[in-house]
Amino acid sequence: MATLARIGEQGFIDFVARLARPARPRPILGIGDDAAVLALPPRAQVLLTTDLLADGIHFRSACTPGLLLGRKALSVNLSDIAAMGGAPHSCVVALGFPRATPLERARAVARGLGAQARRHRVAIVGGDTCAARSLFVNVCLLGLVEPGRAVRRDGARPGDSLYVTGRLGASAAGLAMLRRRRRPRGAPRSAVARAVRAHLDPVPRVTAGRALGVTGLATAMIDLSDGLSQDLRRLCDASRAGALLEEAAIPVSPLASSLLGAAGGLRAALQGGEDYELLFAARAGHEPLIDHLARRIGLPMTRIGQVLPRRQGIRILTRDGRYRDLPPRGFEHFPR
Amino acid sequence: MATLARIGEQGFIDFVARLARPARPRPILGIGDDAAVLALPPRAQVLLTTDLLADGIHFRSACTPGLLLGRKALSVNLSDIAAMGGAPHSCVVALGFPRATPLERARAVARGLGAQARRHRVAIVGGDTCAARSLFVNVCLLGLVEPGRAVRRDGARPGDSLYVTGRLGASAAGLAMLRRRRRPRGAPRSAVARAVRAHLDPVPRVTAGRALGVTGLATAMIDLSDGLSQDLRRLCDASRAGALLEEAAIPVSPLASSLLGAAGGLRAALQGGEDYELLFAARAGHEPLIDHLARRIGLPMTRIGQVLPRRQGIRILTRDGRYRDLPPRGFEHFPR
Repeated sequence: MATLARIGEQGFIDFVARLARPARPRPILGIGDDAAVLALPPRAQVLLTTDLLADGIHFRSACTPGLLLGRKALSVNLSDIAAMGGAPHSCVVALGFPRATPLERARAVARGLGAQARRHRVAIVGGDTCAARSLFVNVCLLGLVEPGRAVRRDGARPGDSLYVTGRLGASAAGLAMLRRRRRPRGAPRSAVARAVRAHLDPVPRVTAGRALGVTGLATAMIDLSDGLSQDLRRLCDASRAGALLEEAAIPVSPLASSLLGAAGGLRAALQGGEDYELLFAARAGHEPLIDHLARRIGLPMTRIGQVLPRRQGIRILTRDGRYRDLPPRGFEHFPR
Repeated sequence: MATLARIGEQGFIDFVARLARPARPRPILGIGDDAAVLALPPRAQVLLTTDLLADGIHFRSACTPGLLLGRKALSVNLSDIAAMGGAPHSCVVALGFPRATPLERARAVARGLGAQARRHRVAIVGGDTCAARSLFVNVCLLGLVEPGRAVRRDGARPGDSLYVTGRLGASAAGLAMLRRRRRPRGAPRSAVARAVRAHLDPVPRVTAGRALGVTGLATAMIDLSDGLSQDLRRLCDASRAGALLEEAAIPVSPLASSLLGAAGGLRAALQGGEDYELLFAARAGHEPLIDHLARRIGLPMTRIGQVLPRRQGIRILTRDGRYRDLPPRGFEHFPR
């Protein structure tokens, strides 16, 4: 079986460069020099983010097709730019491959990156390909936003409504299926496949984030990478605010409920992470505008609660009418 | 022994954020949101580069102090921006740590990054800290350059002189010492220490690169990360040119010669890599200007040969007066 050694580092760089070529906006100078050169619109502010996927931590190589891995590595960064209300522009990619990586797998990762870049009109303008003990893909994505229009985490005020886009928990359900900790009892095969897909191939909410930013409707925004309970805490901490969620309002993915049960589905929505939906706050009274925007974009935006003064903490009103604290539970890279 | 688990991912991010605080230029929004927000000067063009250091590939954790590792991770990126004639501005950092990483080691890596960022007035504006199977540090550095002033690899023309900054081979000599493949026979301990330092703590030629770019003196430039023979080939390929080096003119580091012998020192200079000096071309007749610049900056800039038409290939005139081909030998991540 051919490995990366067949074409070497330069051969792989050339392969990525060919894939990256059709992307827009065109850089002044792309792959192939010490750094890329970009001409940006004069008044725009620049957004910069980096996120990586590492084998054994963010994914398991054995059950992750290279194409989806490459796509997801860009998607998680697109999600960060979306959560700022920005437009993605250009990226550089650092790829680490074990020396025995089959050539086709390396190419599939590059193809996934390239296809997702083209879809979102992001230019891959440079990178670093190297040998590594285990596979990882690091993307650094540059985005643009109108001056003063970046949607931060710290703009939520008591009285604001809290919203999420899409439905939550499908990614965690998919991960559970991949881990086979829970067997799908009688669950249709297609539900398992769709949940696994939600985990391996999340859809970054670029259009929604951009619309919520440009219109000024979102007063604070964050993407749900680590689970609603943890990311809500981050938004509230930055805004020095508390919050009350309504359990009955949380849009749990039907996939999560059917594969994990009602309680498991809710837990997946609150703690599962990797949904890459957007959590945002909006001024009270703007509900009709949000509804209108959601219909225009064709993506549900569900009011799940409201922002409260900080001293009231972060709580959830359960279906049986009780108020409970909502501790931030989710993925922790360095558990105690 | 305390590990990263004592403070967790968020605790480590807070630690980096405190270190990064004094940096200039100040971002509009730095560490702690989904992406950083930067306001850049309206007319500047943007340079973007990424380079990473991975345990077992670029360094061996056991013989690499965390402080120097953090510093080098930024230095290799600074070197890329320098090679474009740009000024470094802001960076994001992705850090992968094995879960058992001692807390002090993780902090040392962050301190090295922070100290080097402050020295070069680079703002660390964001990043991603995660668990990993083996340690790695990825930096994505954004730089600025005046419109049209970026020094590319493709501007060398037949008749141009070829220069390198500093002296070559010390880094490879230091690596040889670390690997103990060659014992320093009678070499002074301080020479070994200085060579090892050259390898672990290279000095990016930011001032020189910037001066060569702003003045327009460099017609093409590249930093020497993979060895003179390999990086010269890249510059020549991009410029569709050939070259003739003069062996006697190559500024082999005295450290390399004393530790590896005359032949070994020359080989280290040609093939060793990781010197992070600058290789550049300049129009014939500009020699006095280059000499003046070198004196002003306090860094040797040595004429080592000239650019030739492509059909003449890339050759070296040896000390005994013979012309030899100079094959591109250096580090290859995926050797055949």
